[in-house]
Amino acid sequence: MVGQSLAGGLARIRHQVTVGTRDPKASLARLGEGGFGTWAAQHAEVGIATFADAAAGADLVVNALSGDASLAGVGAASIADGTVLLDVANPLDASHGMPPSLFVANTDSLGETLQRTFPALRVVKSLNTMTASLMVAPGDLADGDFSTFVCGDDTEAKTLVTELLTSLGHRDVIDLGDITASRGVEAMMLIWLRLWGVVGSSMFTYKIVR
Amino acid sequence: MVGQSLAGGLARIRHQVTVGTRDPKASLARLGEGGFGTWAAQHAEVGIATFADAAAGADLVVNALSGDASLAGVGAASIADGTVLLDVANPLDASHGMPPSLFVANTDSLGETLQRTFPALRVVKSLNTMTASLMVAPGDLADGDFSTFVCGDDTEAKTLVTELLTSLGHRDVIDLGDITASRGVEAMMLIWLRLWGVVGSSMFTYKIVR
Repeated sequence: MVGQSLAGGLARIRHQVTVGTRDPKASLARLGEGGFGTWAAQHAEVGIATFADAAAGADLVVNALSGDASLAGVGAASIADGTVLLDVANPLDASHGMPPSLFVANTDSLGETLQRTFPALRVVKSLNTMTASLMVAPGDLADGDFSTFVCGDDTEAKTLVTELLTSLGHRDVIDLGDITASRGVEAMMLIWLRLWGVVGSSMFTYKIVR
Repeated sequence: MVGQSLAGGLARIRHQVTVGTRDPKASLARLGEGGFGTWAAQHAEVGIATFADAAAGADLVVNALSGDASLAGVGAASIADGTVLLDVANPLDASHGMPPSLFVANTDSLGETLQRTFPALRVVKSLNTMTASLMVAPGDLADGDFSTFVCGDDTEAKTLVTELLTSLGHRDVIDLGDITASRGVEAMMLIWLRLWGVVGSSMFTYKIVR
């Protein structure tokens, strides 16, 4: 769902987008409401390929997998050294009941785990603090008057991501520093999941008032 | 520092406030810039007593101790059954370097630990997501246009705290549900500590844009 939203939104502003899946044929065979095949038929401008084929030659790779599938998926994509990996995933763990906790937290994070596991990539954590539709259409909530966080070890990579975010309409992009700041933005999922129930909708996010 | 700010701010709106310390005489002997004795001399309207004497007969007790001193301090106060305990502390752990992590997180929290340890008290977690001066003077930042969270197991206790917050000028008090939501609000400290450096001041907090 997050991948579909990002792919559609990035294609809309004229990026060339290919969605990677484990098994493109099987993905395309999923029809009906919310099925990937149905979505793909409505988005002919978006390519579909294996993880590795989708990542080949990409200027930017987005990890929009679920948290627990992220390491295997990014590994399977065999992404070229130096590529910017925009990680929007959250390390959700529903194994202890609802609301989910995180399977890595406090002194480590999924963003850091990805950067450690794939040291030749340039990981930038962002966008995980909002629902998928807001990632590519921030103007749909309060005219975009909220904050979007980036963190990562590579300044140039953060600049690339920040320019992309700005082109999508993100008005207040805050650079939190190195990738260890993923601990902070991933932990915001804990209150996000509570607020989801209170607000009664996923159309909310955080503004840093300062 | 948090206790002084809260005591001063609550006394200013005409509450009868007594600060509890381990050793009131020793506290009052701390003079000079930021010393408790100096502050107390400037706030004659605020009482000073032992933890237990300060809590005796109180309608509301505030835990403004450091996270790691909270259990012992609340225990020493021998607070009467049924009393509302407003917990504003954060379980900061600087033992692994800076910025601090949390000594309890993700699947548990300080708020829950206090409620479990003192089941006869009615614990309400709030105000831990902002700097001390904003707790009692929210209008000093963006005319108070930000969000303040409460959570706890007792509805009546949350109503009491919400009324207090509103009387202080908190404009958007969000009830996150039971005390387990402390996990979410305490985890916001992880990004708060990062933002502190980025913003260059502690005068910031979160608004839930919805």
